[in-house]
Amino acid sequence: MPLVVVGSVALDSVVTPTEKRDDVLGGSAVYFSYAASFFTKVRLVGVVGEDWPGEHTKMLKGRGVDTSGLVVSPGGKTFRWRGRYEPNMNDRETLEVHLNVFETFDPVLPEEYRRAKFLFLANGSPVVQMKVLDQVPGARLAVADTMDLWIETQRDELDTLLKRLDGLVLNDSEARLLTDDENMVRAGHKVRQMGPKFVVIKKGEHGAMFFSEHETYVLPAFPTERVVDPTGAGDSFAGGMMGYLAEQDDFEPETLKTAMAYGTLVASFAVEDFSLDRLQDIGRDEIESRLAEYRKMLTF
Amino acid sequence: MPLVVVGSVALDSVVTPTEKRDDVLGGSAVYFSYAASFFTKVRLVGVVGEDWPGEHTKMLKGRGVDTSGLVVSPGGKTFRWRGRYEPNMNDRETLEVHLNVFETFDPVLPEEYRRAKFLFLANGSPVVQMKVLDQVPGARLAVADTMDLWIETQRDELDTLLKRLDGLVLNDSEARLLTDDENMVRAGHKVRQMGPKFVVIKKGEHGAMFFSEHETYVLPAFPTERVVDPTGAGDSFAGGMMGYLAEQDDFEPETLKTAMAYGTLVASFAVEDFSLDRLQDIGRDEIESRLAEYRKMLTF
Repeated sequence: MPLVVVGSVALDSVVTPTEKRDDVLGGSAVYFSYAASFFTKVRLVGVVGEDWPGEHTKMLKGRGVDTSGLVVSPGGKTFRWRGRYEPNMNDRETLEVHLNVFETFDPVLPEEYRRAKFLFLANGSPVVQMKVLDQVPGARLAVADTMDLWIETQRDELDTLLKRLDGLVLNDSEARLLTDDENMVRAGHKVRQMGPKFVVIKKGEHGAMFFSEHETYVLPAFPTERVVDPTGAGDSFAGGMMGYLAEQDDFEPETLKTAMAYGTLVASFAVEDFSLDRLQDIGRDEIESRLAEYRKMLTF
Repeated sequence: MPLVVVGSVALDSVVTPTEKRDDVLGGSAVYFSYAASFFTKVRLVGVVGEDWPGEHTKMLKGRGVDTSGLVVSPGGKTFRWRGRYEPNMNDRETLEVHLNVFETFDPVLPEEYRRAKFLFLANGSPVVQMKVLDQVPGARLAVADTMDLWIETQRDELDTLLKRLDGLVLNDSEARLLTDDENMVRAGHKVRQMGPKFVVIKKGEHGAMFFSEHETYVLPAFPTERVVDPTGAGDSFAGGMMGYLAEQDDFEPETLKTAMAYGTLVASFAVEDFSLDRLQDIGRDEIESRLAEYRKMLTF
């Protein structure tokens, strides 16, 4: 099943305690698309400026990603983010953000996209996310991400969106902010009660938690000593998860749990190098082989 | 197989964001003993003062814990700790510590204890831990805990001890301090290279990691929304783990992993109330039933 994703397409500059990269390929919708492309056909919606290197679009196309929804905005510049990671490789400081063309992003989906059954609303304001949702009336599984910025500045719009979602993916600090609860088990269910049928709380190196009416569980992250650049880990997680669901054309509880595991593993590869470099090194085989290891790790 | 534990026996005063308790039963060796007593015969070594309520000894005896190694120091006062938890129920501030009789604790093990095959060295200086280890020459599995205080003040003594241990259990901040490495996978293996055949890093609400020459894995904590008092969670974890190993009289890799799971679950009960209150509510049945749930959670 094709999977539509809407979100940011960016050029990132990243400083880690040992290395740096400038203007590398990034953005929530890009990480998501690449991660999902291991499993299914992805249709990408986003906007870039005239400074956008065409090679990136070509690379995505080479992965079978439909880029007909990627608009080049005349005279505009691509969204840029610059950040620096602390030695723990978890906390980070944003040094610069230039929204550029992303600031006025008003996505209009190509006709073929509108018939999608699987939809992911990556980084973007709840107003924009809602506009996209309205364009895909037949979506059987609509899942969104959100961010502290929107929780703080567009809470009413976010509350309205939440009531229309099948799933919400957010990280632990965002869940804390949204619910004012420090206990992640309670926080997860509180978010669920705001509307989504299921909620996934991403805890970075500590794994991810899942909440639905009848289920509460946590899966650990895959232990890796090679953490080079965590940028895009959360979006890669979501891409792996949604990609697998779309491939299976199913979102029953058991499929959702396996999808959480795939998301975890795709993210574990993503952090092993800058940008999409590590994901571009691997194929489905490496993911399956790590899945087997992961399953063994959790069996006793 | 009987299991010997040496460590602190204390009266704790605990303040949480919503409740407080004064002078309740606590101490590393007490939490450990109770947790292990679900699985095996425990022989406790510790020291208390004349202010020690005899009812606590009676309660431990009622659990089959051998308290002949628990010395009442004439004229002395029992170790007291007072602490306050932050709203996240993870970070805590120590408000008062009175080591009292624990300061000069020089454990002499009863004859029967010296033939133990399973030994756990709970909270104590590496010098004291070593003295105990010397008294149990036939120990087949000697495991210790350590603390930031000893890493900072008795590093040489700790290094000597590490070379003689089968296992070391420590928390993530201690592993960071001991290795100066922020990545827990690397840190775990670095600690292992200091001597112990295996290392367990406890991450509180984020679970526990295991490291041996051929294995690296992580098991998540059991998700619970009822976190009333985390005091003693790490010692309860160690007690559940070592208790199961002693019960099985085995420490093969597969048994160790199951033991990690039991430790995780006993700790998940321990935090659900103050002191040992929740552990005193439950039996082996409740542990087995949560184990079944935990296994199901990790299966996909």
